[in-house]
Amino acid sequence: QRVDELPLQIGVMQKGKQNAITDVLGVEVGHTTLIRGDSVRTGVTAILPHAGNIFQEKVPAAVFVGNGFGKLAGSTQITELGNLETPVILTNTLNVATAMDAVIKYTLKLPGNENVRSVNAVVGETNDGYLNDIRGQHVENKDVIAAIKNASSGKVAEGNVGAGTGTIAFGYKGGIGTSSRKLPEDLGGYTLGVLVQSNFGGVLQIAGVPVGQKLGNYSFRDNLLNNVDGSCMMVVATDAPLDSRNLERLAKRAFLGLAKTGGIASNGSGDYVIAFSTAKEMRIPYKITKKRLQQELVPNDLMSPLFMATIEATEEAILNSLFMAETCTGFKNRTIKALPKEEVLRILREHSALKR
Amino acid sequence: QRVDELPLQIGVMQKGKQNAITDVLGVEVGHTTLIRGDSVRTGVTAILPHAGNIFQEKVPAAVFVGNGFGKLAGSTQITELGNLETPVILTNTLNVATAMDAVIKYTLKLPGNENVRSVNAVVGETNDGYLNDIRGQHVENKDVIAAIKNASSGKVAEGNVGAGTGTIAFGYKGGIGTSSRKLPEDLGGYTLGVLVQSNFGGVLQIAGVPVGQKLGNYSFRDNLLNNVDGSCMMVVATDAPLDSRNLERLAKRAFLGLAKTGGIASNGSGDYVIAFSTAKEMRIPYKITKKRLQQELVPNDLMSPLFMATIEATEEAILNSLFMAETCTGFKNRTIKALPKEEVLRILREHSALKR
Amino acid sequence: QRVDELPLQIGVMQKGKQNAITDVLGVEVGHTTLIRGDSVRTGVTAILPHAGNIFQEKVPAAVFVGNGFGKLAGSTQITELGNLETPVILTNTLNVATAMDAVIKYTLKLPGNENVRSVNAVVGETNDGYLNDIRGQHVENKDVIAAIKNASSGKVAEGNVGAGTGTIAFGYKGGIGTSSRKLPEDLGGYTLGVLVQSNFGGVLQIAGVPVGQKLGNYSFRDNLLNNVDGSCMMVVATDAPLDSRNLERLAKRAFLGLAKTGGIASNGSGDYVIAFSTAKEMRIPYKITKKRLQQELVPNDLMSPLFMATIEATEEAILNSLFMAETCTGFKNRTIKALPKEEVLRILREHSALKR
Amino acid sequence: QRVDELPLQIGVMQKGKQNAITDVLGVEVGHTTLIRGDSVRTGVTAILPHAGNIFQEKVPAAVFVGNGFGKLAGSTQITELGNLETPVILTNTLNVATAMDAVIKYTLKLPGNENVRSVNAVVGETNDGYLNDIRGQHVENKDVIAAIKNASSGKVAEGNVGAGTGTIAFGYKGGIGTSSRKLPEDLGGYTLGVLVQSNFGGVLQIAGVPVGQKLGNYSFRDNLLNNVDGSCMMVVATDAPLDSRNLERLAKRAFLGLAKTGGIASNGSGDYVIAFSTAKEMRIPYKITKKRLQQELVPNDLMSPLFMATIEATEEAILNSLFMAETCTGFKNRTIKALPKEEVLRILREHSALKR
Repeated sequence: QRVDELPLQIGVMQKGKQNAITDVLGVEVGHTTLIRGDSVRTGVTAILPHAGNIFQEKVPAAVFVGNGFGKLAGSTQITELGNLETPVILTNTLNVATAMDAVIKYTLKLPGNENVRSVNAVVGETNDGYLNDIRGQHVENKDVIAAIKNASSGKVAEGNVGAGTGTIAFGYKGGIGTSSRKLPEDLGGYTLGVLVQSNFGGVLQIAGVPVGQKLGNYSFRDNLLNNVDGSCMMVVATDAPLDSRNLERLAKRAFLGLAKTGGIASNGSGDYVIAFSTAKEMRIPYKITKKRLQQELVPNDLMSPLFMATIEATEEAILNSLFMAETCTGFKNRTIKALPKEEVLRILREHSALKR
Repeated sequence: QRVDELPLQIGVMQKGKQNAITDVLGVEVGHTTLIRGDSVRTGVTAILPHAGNIFQEKVPAAVFVGNGFGKLAGSTQITELGNLETPVILTNTLNVATAMDAVIKYTLKLPGNENVRSVNAVVGETNDGYLNDIRGQHVENKDVIAAIKNASSGKVAEGNVGAGTGTIAFGYKGGIGTSSRKLPEDLGGYTLGVLVQSNFGGVLQIAGVPVGQKLGNYSFRDNLLNNVDGSCMMVVATDAPLDSRNLERLAKRAFLGLAKTGGIASNGSGDYVIAFSTAKEMRIPYKITKKRLQQELVPNDLMSPLFMATIEATEEAILNSLFMAETCTGFKNRTIKALPKEEVLRILREHSALKR
Repeated sequence: QRVDELPLQIGVMQKGKQNAITDVLGVEVGHTTLIRGDSVRTGVTAILPHAGNIFQEKVPAAVFVGNGFGKLAGSTQITELGNLETPVILTNTLNVATAMDAVIKYTLKLPGNENVRSVNAVVGETNDGYLNDIRGQHVENKDVIAAIKNASSGKVAEGNVGAGTGTIAFGYKGGIGTSSRKLPEDLGGYTLGVLVQSNFGGVLQIAGVPVGQKLGNYSFRDNLLNNVDGSCMMVVATDAPLDSRNLERLAKRAFLGLAKTGGIASNGSGDYVIAFSTAKEMRIPYKITKKRLQQELVPNDLMSPLFMATIEATEEAILNSLFMAETCTGFKNRTIKALPKEEVLRILREHSALKR
Repeated sequence: QRVDELPLQIGVMQKGKQNAITDVLGVEVGHTTLIRGDSVRTGVTAILPHAGNIFQEKVPAAVFVGNGFGKLAGSTQITELGNLETPVILTNTLNVATAMDAVIKYTLKLPGNENVRSVNAVVGETNDGYLNDIRGQHVENKDVIAAIKNASSGKVAEGNVGAGTGTIAFGYKGGIGTSSRKLPEDLGGYTLGVLVQSNFGGVLQIAGVPVGQKLGNYSFRDNLLNNVDGSCMMVVATDAPLDSRNLERLAKRAFLGLAKTGGIASNGSGDYVIAFSTAKEMRIPYKITKKRLQQELVPNDLMSPLFMATIEATEEAILNSLFMAETCTGFKNRTIKALPKEEVLRILREHSALKR
């Protein structure tokens, strides 16, 4: 059950049709879920800014590093050139290299890329090593390619899927979650979507209600140095025509969305945001044919509604990752329970957070 | 009435004795409040890391720029050298230069500084131009000096005082607010305090409760491009021995605290955080007498509780600025009302946010 | 005598008509030189991106911090919003506030700015406290205004003028210098100009020749910790239509130009670069009238010639500041000699650096 | 023939014993050179900060991005945590993932790392695709391991070896180069070494002499948009006890050293600097046993000589990479000539750049 199927409202803005990152025209998402035997609980999630040859038609992009205890590949080139030239891949910490190599091979082989000699593969990760035998590095090249190939623009599977198969958030089973917002026409009418891989700690809040506290399950509760480590990868897509500077500003707001769920960006967390624009008029061709790039941009002064949309969609995407995740038993017979929905709903009701 | 006088709890950590930035040993705060005639509603707030000659005994410091639509003076030198050598001054946007000059003159005149030829004055601001005749630039040198001189380590005045005299937050009267947290001994026993000058918009949340929404007072409510601009200056002090790198990480967490009150860091907001450590063993002498600086630092792995403390104290400081502010009529006979406390308490009660 | 009047060639690219920042269409430069009595050797230099109301017609801009031991005002807003809304002012370290305040007042008073309540004054500085009674803070509001008012697009005075009146470079009298480059048409035909305020140390090289070493005048020569402090403010202007991201990249290349003169960006140096584009099609209006900004940009792939032009023009601008400066006696009867041109020419000749 | 075997002096400071990065106590360098058939001209270079388990005994480190058109892996974690936990690996652009995976596997297998689940592999690259069949991705896991295993503290092979096997600089054969500087005792007595993988363009200068121009071989000579792309990876090691902030400042100065050889950091260049300190007292243990880290640091005010040393050593390391490289024929029967040493010496002599 997704958040929007509950009588629960996150924020004040309108959602997109599917309430998913795929509401942004052109965006496609694919998963490869690896559940094998007792120990393998991991996977791959691919987010494509468009269905074409991304290397030949790059999109404006930016990265914000919330907390850099992570291995995100490709960030410096995005920042320097202001664009993204591959799918964004999410996986586990020790398979980033696998995914990079797969994206490189995938890109080299695309028709039209026969002479390409440089590929900036963008790969993020979180550490699923509690439920998954992460040292076994079970993701393979073909798993990454499969996630790219099966990417589609429809409904996005959430919870224990893809790169979220083995992740943990706030002490409960986390995973993949997504959400979107649609601005009213007079604020530009743009759509903005977020997809997260949740794997972090803090003091869970749902629609502001201190659920983690009520459940007695939160960081530092026992005055001990709990391991609150983990990470949150956040991907923000929009059809608003933005350049990399304003995309970086968007990316920063996703970090604010994380805060609203109770995340604290702990020392060991790799909290990164990758933001891109799918607006066709903003594409950057690999082969320059003219001495000038024509662009039409949203001016600074009209950015605030997009900032608010990012915050709301990130918050809801994280909550969806928790609500859609299921109890999982994995590596070394460890079990992480799903969010106890009944109890949570009771707490939400007690706090008058449910709509009638 | 401060938040901690209500049956309302922000976060899960223990507060410091006065629940103020002055709980951090050595920190002093002073205000100059300028309320004159119909139009002047502004002022100055000074935060001193210690009572000595700060230029001669610099403290480790860092700056985080949440949203840089602001005029913070002194940031690049703090970042390059990792230290702070003057009081931190807060005032209104068009009097930053006044405050800089006052801090320079103050520093040049301090005994021991007779040969000093370079001073990095650190001055932040928010724009109080709705209630204050800001174009009149009513802050004078002596007002800044007065704020420094009357700084003390005791209770901190909040609300419509000092640099918060004319500010607005979430459509209500904002101002100065402060709060602190004290870590348990086994997490280091450190104290961390935050002081804010609140002047920003968004969708107000109090202890997670969507108060702004319930009051029907929030950004973009009418699908119009409201002016949600404004700013939030945040100052974080701690006695934990931290270097500039980990202070920058602390500073970033204050931005998360802002998010929890419903702030969206809108385009026009100047949201800055200045963080410093008062730990005596971390002081940086102006005159180098040895070829090595001895330091004792909190390691990365023990930072997370300080991150959480920063988030909580920032959230509560912002709320204190709202709860302590009073209705104000100023420039052009404009009035901004105080937070309607009775209504707010009713809403909080309805959401079971009040402790019993 | 300027470098281009000598048989000396810096780099391989073509110079602009006046070999000055004012070769960039629209750019104006003005100086106020303060030489009074025995002790006052300071001043103000103003660089205007265009002759109109800059606040109403902002220009794309960026800042690069080479070494941040300096007090540059206005940097964070330039970075956040990607634009410049005032003249760039250079002066001495302890008069930055004076210049900020003057720029604010100047901007508030411009016709059309009657309702403006926020101004991001951009002011850089270097420390002329050896030759100038810097603690006296002798620059006044009217001096700053005068520099702005007398700005013109013609020939730029160099050496001991304006903000360069009392500065020192490589142990010799430094000051203001400028230079420009013009790209061939097939590389875009753009003009790029640089203006510097030189006040730094290292091991002077002229057209690569180790002149400082030959003159026996360089940093750390005596194995002592010399005071090599000082600073270099660099302003880069171009008519190429660039956004802030590519302007930041340009700015970074000015730092490379500084290196080629033997600068080392010592600990105490405040080495900053401010870059802006004067291209009319890139102006950012204060009042947004449309939901989109139309832009035509130079693509990344065509930036390299502009990078090279920046490096060459910065190197030559610094050399011009030295060649045009004259021996100066000032504060406490201290004297700093001009570069000994005859000796320098002899050294250059010995190294076959002079063209026939 | 290395630069120091010629009567040619770069800079004014004293060199270390071997004039190599390995002069810094503990630093080890290893190469794997892959020359196979007609098309494979690539390899791997490993730089180890010490011979122990780097993951268990991390070293302070920092990254500076000169121009981010590159795929450096591991940068964000270095920046966030201020340390390095693996060898630094250099290779070709399309084998970064191979090297990352090898470093991860190597680290996971080290005695003592049995429970490690997160490894921040640091891998840099330049593009050797002109002389090497880069799309063939010929570097294998074992090649990376071999470079690490055969690392030693002695003399460092330069030119067409390791990651420099197929690289090109200034139109001539580039490769690996190294150099070092030793500060006088009264400036701290520290040793600082640099290793580069040179693969970039511009207008070659040797000891300031415009050799590229004299040879008629430089960027944009024909007013055409030459492909000046390429990259320069620079690694800076020192035994000075520095934290990450001051290491970042060092790293920035390597970029200045690049400038002095005539590099322009063109659009397509991936110019990165990784700097670390080998000082034993600065090691950061993986397992925290105490609540405080004791450190002894070089203060800011004593950094300038280290800055100058970095600039000089980088300049000389790049020149060594050129002087030690040999003519190479590779992929598609392309040939890149070695620097024409006789001609170069003649030019240097004409410019009186050779010592008698």
